[in-house]
Amino acid sequence: MSDLPNGKFITLEGGEGVGKSTNLRFITQWLTEQGIPFIQTREPGGTPLAEQLRNLLLEKREEGVDPTAELLMVFAARAQHLQRVILPALAEGKWVICDRFTDATYAYQGGGRELDSNLIAQLEQTVQGDLRPDQVLLLDVDPEIGLQRAASTGEADRFESEQIHFFNKVRAAYLDRAHSDPDRYAVIDASVPLEQVQENLAVALGKIASAL
Amino acid sequence: MSDLPNGKFITLEGGEGVGKSTNLRFITQWLTEQGIPFIQTREPGGTPLAEQLRNLLLEKREEGVDPTAELLMVFAARAQHLQRVILPALAEGKWVICDRFTDATYAYQGGGRELDSNLIAQLEQTVQGDLRPDQVLLLDVDPEIGLQRAASTGEADRFESEQIHFFNKVRAAYLDRAHSDPDRYAVIDASVPLEQVQENLAVALGKIASAL
Repeated sequence: MSDLPNGKFITLEGGEGVGKSTNLRFITQWLTEQGIPFIQTREPGGTPLAEQLRNLLLEKREEGVDPTAELLMVFAARAQHLQRVILPALAEGKWVICDRFTDATYAYQGGGRELDSNLIAQLEQTVQGDLRPDQVLLLDVDPEIGLQRAASTGEADRFESEQIHFFNKVRAAYLDRAHSDPDRYAVIDASVPLEQVQENLAVALGKIASAL
Repeated sequence: MSDLPNGKFITLEGGEGVGKSTNLRFITQWLTEQGIPFIQTREPGGTPLAEQLRNLLLEKREEGVDPTAELLMVFAARAQHLQRVILPALAEGKWVICDRFTDATYAYQGGGRELDSNLIAQLEQTVQGDLRPDQVLLLDVDPEIGLQRAASTGEADRFESEQIHFFNKVRAAYLDRAHSDPDRYAVIDASVPLEQVQENLAVALGKIASAL
């Protein structure tokens, strides 16, 4: 290990249609302007093997997917991504900006699929040890609005094809986690105009940078 | 659930070049002759999704595969296979003849890759609950001999490409498990002539059938 301080591990979370892509571009532009070295990556995915697992997860298939199988695939991709990409970048002092991470597992597989959150916590510990995101930026919007926005962006994958009830449970699980640890989560209202969302994102990013 | 007695869950295990394919044909022929209803399946695999995971696992790749990621992929495929194929067949009173199962995980990922067997046991409990094979048929041969046999059957996959040291650890882990529970494991010496191997297999199968 070098003497460099570890980089910051920042995750961007949220359900369908919260505007993650647009806001990711804003975040990386902000980091570039500040001269902060970073990598941008995503989950599930981020390595060739993990992206192949992502494809298997998102593919719509006639075969019903067992929820535990889905959960284990998510954590398999995460183990690979962490060891090959995230941990090396943090050790080099880079910030890691990750589009979804384990909060999404608690929200989608825990909230949405109603899998036992103790099992998720056990796998989290196995795969991550004590590593947790330094800051979670949670873009929050009512799924009624989010799904309307998402509907206009191409064919739905296996998750996007779920019903409103599923996404309400996803949102509730995200907000539960955020409320339980307000320092580590910034809940950003994504129903307001984009300019205002990005002002709030800039404030949250500024706080993280100044805490270095 | 029906009133039918559950079928028997029989797994065939062993390292490289022990003759699993040949002996699987013998086993299924024996069951057919006895009029026992059965399905034949394999791990990793046995459903379309699980077979896709198998392909990802076996593929040789430049990217080193994190051992925990490998382990979680194995159990993801197993969860899917159990729920979709194995449990329904057993519930219909069929025998399930499975080419490798969780003993292979203890042997390859536990023995070969030296992953913590407590972690494997935890995942086994999560995915299988209390389900264990009724009988494990372990074909055993010195890896020196096994690898010579296997070398003549086409290009090696990611596991077959391991070195002799790895396969010695795999064998030792298999034998450890067999010795710890002699009633549930039949260790079949696969170094003797095939005819004799199959006589021993027939004896083991006869015992299971008569225990019904």
